[in-house]
Amino acid sequence: MTNPVLVEVTRGNVVESAHRGAVAVYEADGKPLLEIGDTARPVFPRSAVKAIQALPFVESGAADAYGFGEKELALSCASHSGEPEHVELARSMLAKAGLDETALECGTHWPSNHEATIALARSGGSPGALHNNCSGKHSGFLCTCRHLGIDHRGYVAAGHPEQEMVREAMESVTGAVHDAEHRGTDGCSIPTYAVPLRSYALGFARMVTGKGLPPERAKAAQRLLKACMAEPFLVAGTDRADVALMQAAPGRIFVKTGAEGVYCAAVPELGVGISLKCDDGASRGAEVMVAAVLSKLLKTDGTLAAKLTELANPALENRKGLKVGALRPAGALA
Amino acid sequence: MTNPVLVEVTRGNVVESAHRGAVAVYEADGKPLLEIGDTARPVFPRSAVKAIQALPFVESGAADAYGFGEKELALSCASHSGEPEHVELARSMLAKAGLDETALECGTHWPSNHEATIALARSGGSPGALHNNCSGKHSGFLCTCRHLGIDHRGYVAAGHPEQEMVREAMESVTGAVHDAEHRGTDGCSIPTYAVPLRSYALGFARMVTGKGLPPERAKAAQRLLKACMAEPFLVAGTDRADVALMQAAPGRIFVKTGAEGVYCAAVPELGVGISLKCDDGASRGAEVMVAAVLSKLLKTDGTLAAKLTELANPALENRKGLKVGALRPAGALA
Repeated sequence: MTNPVLVEVTRGNVVESAHRGAVAVYEADGKPLLEIGDTARPVFPRSAVKAIQALPFVESGAADAYGFGEKELALSCASHSGEPEHVELARSMLAKAGLDETALECGTHWPSNHEATIALARSGGSPGALHNNCSGKHSGFLCTCRHLGIDHRGYVAAGHPEQEMVREAMESVTGAVHDAEHRGTDGCSIPTYAVPLRSYALGFARMVTGKGLPPERAKAAQRLLKACMAEPFLVAGTDRADVALMQAAPGRIFVKTGAEGVYCAAVPELGVGISLKCDDGASRGAEVMVAAVLSKLLKTDGTLAAKLTELANPALENRKGLKVGALRPAGALA
Repeated sequence: MTNPVLVEVTRGNVVESAHRGAVAVYEADGKPLLEIGDTARPVFPRSAVKAIQALPFVESGAADAYGFGEKELALSCASHSGEPEHVELARSMLAKAGLDETALECGTHWPSNHEATIALARSGGSPGALHNNCSGKHSGFLCTCRHLGIDHRGYVAAGHPEQEMVREAMESVTGAVHDAEHRGTDGCSIPTYAVPLRSYALGFARMVTGKGLPPERAKAAQRLLKACMAEPFLVAGTDRADVALMQAAPGRIFVKTGAEGVYCAAVPELGVGISLKCDDGASRGAEVMVAAVLSKLLKTDGTLAAKLTELANPALENRKGLKVGALRPAGALA
């Protein structure tokens, strides 16, 4: 099955490039509200499921034991831009558990925020593991290990108790088997499993409603999504699409990007979960898709829908800041 | 017409993402050697045609008048990475024409080479127009204007004599009409025109053989392509695919990338031109496509074909340098 074109990139009057993809919108009882393209194909969710991966951090009591509030919960679900606020919060989470950045096994990269990279270089600094966009999630993993008395060394490996807890959470929430055959290694070295795209939509419908989840898990899920919606900057960073989308309607939209063009999202008032994948892995395509889907789902709120439509139609500027083109939803999302 | 998948991106045993595209390989007499996908659709060539855009710089006598050799010719066809060698050479070209970087109208951006950006920031510097990846091309434009006594101000605008010379060269070499309806503005603010993808393959077959071009133009074309093949670093930069491809067989392969997943290329010994577009605009997809096409065309040279096949199958590493996946040619390019 060939997925349809869902985003067009224009320059002048010409369509220059296009992005294909698949979209699933589900209710918590398993009812599909919208399906575009092949939603049965296994897809790596990458970072789009960090909120599910953070469930053991809350359920284990670790987050409460260390006195963490919404900021820390948001950061544990984040793909942050490595800005000072993100770095310092991750550092403080580790410190509460008696650890420092040497415990992180996520690898090192320069901040994805360009200004943060320039500032770090100007100050004579170099990036460490705290700048890694996954350092908040990994800090949550490490706090969970410490709280439960588990040896945290090697916590990124498949089979380590931390990753087994994460896999159990992923399976139970999405209802999809996570097997070794569909296992890959994520950018931050933890296992990632490819399961049908639609499973993530169902999973986030359960996360946002609590329906179909055990009571403690339902509570943890809602705490995590609420924290992300309350602290969108900590989930992403300056000028990031996730922040713009969550700030468009505070507390009413949850979104989370993942590498290779994935999004998971949820709309509490509708009780639905959303998952989508841009076939070619482009973030810009996935960002337009998720904004367009949200605009459709929330169309009865005209003001909000207009805001979301604007986010689904970003202008393309050139090196001199001239508007030379745009991205726009196409096909079933037009 | 839906273009086929030509590149797959794997993680573990799973295909995570895929890139579709179209490819044209032509001889100078207009005979197609290979066509994959829709090669009649108008495509913006972006920077992939800089060697054609540089023809007036050579034909006008400007390059010779200022004493430029292969290095300057290569830079005039470059999308360089903003490394010190690129910046200083562009500066020296402008100086020969009595100009400095304030004459450049390409806009400013940080070097695309990450190390160059970090070094510039660490030194307390900021990027200028010379760091723009197009500063060599624009320096060529400016030298042409100065040599011909044309007022260079506004040289990036459609209708300026410089851009009229460029448009005439593009039309004459590709044989395709460049009209206002298919005009867009490029990243560096000059006009870019969308014409059928296959026209660029034909154009580069003419460029590399000289066939079908007036004698002076044929000479200029071959000087420019030879200069690029002799100085691949100046055409691109550190760790760039264009350098790896041209260095794989010095003097035997010309390639030039363009934004939004375009490549133009030529193989002198076969007398063919190549053009391709990755539908979604991804450079990584286009890079695999061009390496795979070259490997097929040059398969009778087993050693070279093996090198090109290796370049067509790059590994994907994660933040810790672990090999987590790969890109590979697919479908008609497998």
